[in-house]
Amino acid sequence: MLTIKRLSLTDAHLLIAGATAKAQEIGVPMCMAVTDESGQLIAFDRMDGGKLTSSIIAQDKAYTAAGAKRTTESYGTASQPGSPAYGINSAIGGRLMVVAGGLPVIVDGDVVGAIGLSSGTPAQDSECAQAGIDHWMRNR
Amino acid sequence: MLTIKRLSLTDAHLLIAGATAKAQEIGVPMCMAVTDESGQLIAFDRMDGGKLTSSIIAQDKAYTAAGAKRTTESYGTASQPGSPAYGINSAIGGRLMVVAGGLPVIVDGDVVGAIGLSSGTPAQDSECAQAGIDHWMRNR
Amino acid sequence: MLTIKRLSLTDAHLLIAGATAKAQEIGVPMCMAVTDESGQLIAFDRMDGGKLTSSIIAQDKAYTAAGAKRTTESYGTASQPGSPAYGINSAIGGRLMVVAGGLPVIVDGDVVGAIGLSSGTPAQDSECAQAGIDHWMRNR
Amino acid sequence: MLTIKRLSLTDAHLLIAGATAKAQEIGVPMCMAVTDESGQLIAFDRMDGGKLTSSIIAQDKAYTAAGAKRTTESYGTASQPGSPAYGINSAIGGRLMVVAGGLPVIVDGDVVGAIGLSSGTPAQDSECAQAGIDHWMRNR
Repeated sequence: MLTIKRLSLTDAHLLIAGATAKAQEIGVPMCMAVTDESGQLIAFDRMDGGKLTSSIIAQDKAYTAAGAKRTTESYGTASQPGSPAYGINSAIGGRLMVVAGGLPVIVDGDVVGAIGLSSGTPAQDSECAQAGIDHWMRNR
Repeated sequence: MLTIKRLSLTDAHLLIAGATAKAQEIGVPMCMAVTDESGQLIAFDRMDGGKLTSSIIAQDKAYTAAGAKRTTESYGTASQPGSPAYGINSAIGGRLMVVAGGLPVIVDGDVVGAIGLSSGTPAQDSECAQAGIDHWMRNR
Repeated sequence: MLTIKRLSLTDAHLLIAGATAKAQEIGVPMCMAVTDESGQLIAFDRMDGGKLTSSIIAQDKAYTAAGAKRTTESYGTASQPGSPAYGINSAIGGRLMVVAGGLPVIVDGDVVGAIGLSSGTPAQDSECAQAGIDHWMRNR
Repeated sequence: MLTIKRLSLTDAHLLIAGATAKAQEIGVPMCMAVTDESGQLIAFDRMDGGKLTSSIIAQDKAYTAAGAKRTTESYGTASQPGSPAYGINSAIGGRLMVVAGGLPVIVDGDVVGAIGLSSGTPAQDSECAQAGIDHWMRNR
């Protein structure tokens, strides 16, 4: 039998709060999704002005980071033409995201969930997602 | 050009807070989704213990209530065997929900968004969704 | 080799114009789709205030009427519990519509396209779709 | 509560009329879609001879331009191998289009809808889409 550690809704809200603060600081209204370790949605916020397409992309970034236990950015590198994971971006009906902005949330080496952001540049999305994790780490 | 009124993220959080309070009162952990008037997700919370299948069902209930400008419960009645909307439950890839728990949010006769809940009985889902609207009405 | 008769864009506009006039007369803003005999979209109009969910349903009603060469309403009857086509409403990913409002457009016994409406009651949808066909018949 | 500006059906018809005139001028029968600011279809025309695959592509170009608030062409640049948005073309079930021909419609800095064309070369698609916006700007 397995015992799994998983983010709670309280954890998810902390992650989103940290991401929101950074998004407000850089002036980019974000779509922000937090999933559990199984890639299932726990919480989602679309800041006023966040992109509609990003509602789905943010969720799929978190889904990918949780399910594959790696950043979506790392998949971007690994899936370039000529690279081993080339073409994986269209897997799972296109849900597998290879654009930066999805980060696994890791505790003691175990993935316990993930956060995915979308609406800014991929670098902005990642920066704000990381700010969410940092905020959660300090306050959990 | 048309001018449309739409729920903000602050509104969505109020709706979810009201639904959460009622869900805690009746002891049923819920999945709760708020969409804008176009059925696009603004905010979502899965209370600890909420059903995984309900993550999607709650979103689709809100989508249906916003897009069709009516409660999902009313579709349940209208789509019984022998009734005019029989068979509509599988429309839009099955996203059109005819189970109670999705309510449009209406201001001055206009649909400005919707709330959808799932995890309890349909009656519990509706009760908590309505509690969300009531809370929002009192505090917005 | 086959020779196929198919609605032109001009035909499609006439069909929609007739449906629009009736929709305005009864005061229900409609979503209106015209497909060719292969069920492929030729033209679509969402009147201001038409339901969002109906954007897809109207197209799927026309698709069904063209593809199956029958009214969607007739499928409603044929798919009641205990009837031979029971359960067909979820076919083709739910695109097969069994709710009234989709009518094939027939010339000399051949289906040359279809019109599908959604946003009112199924009876209103059918009435306005038929008005579209009547208008086209008089003016083509 | 937010207040949103959105294209009306009359606006959508003007956009399509302008695109149609340019398409006729260059002799390419187009599929032309106009969505609101939420990416939901308002109006669609397939000119006689327009490509069937373009029926969907035109709609998805408009959806992308509205939802992401940018031209689909700009996504083509940003998603080249080695670029930050590489791989985003398969997002949202492949609906996110990175081929030119989708343009947001912007009024006073706000996206109020979008127009998407397909059937010609991407450059022709963009040229005719822009002609639609120009015509609408002059006549609205």
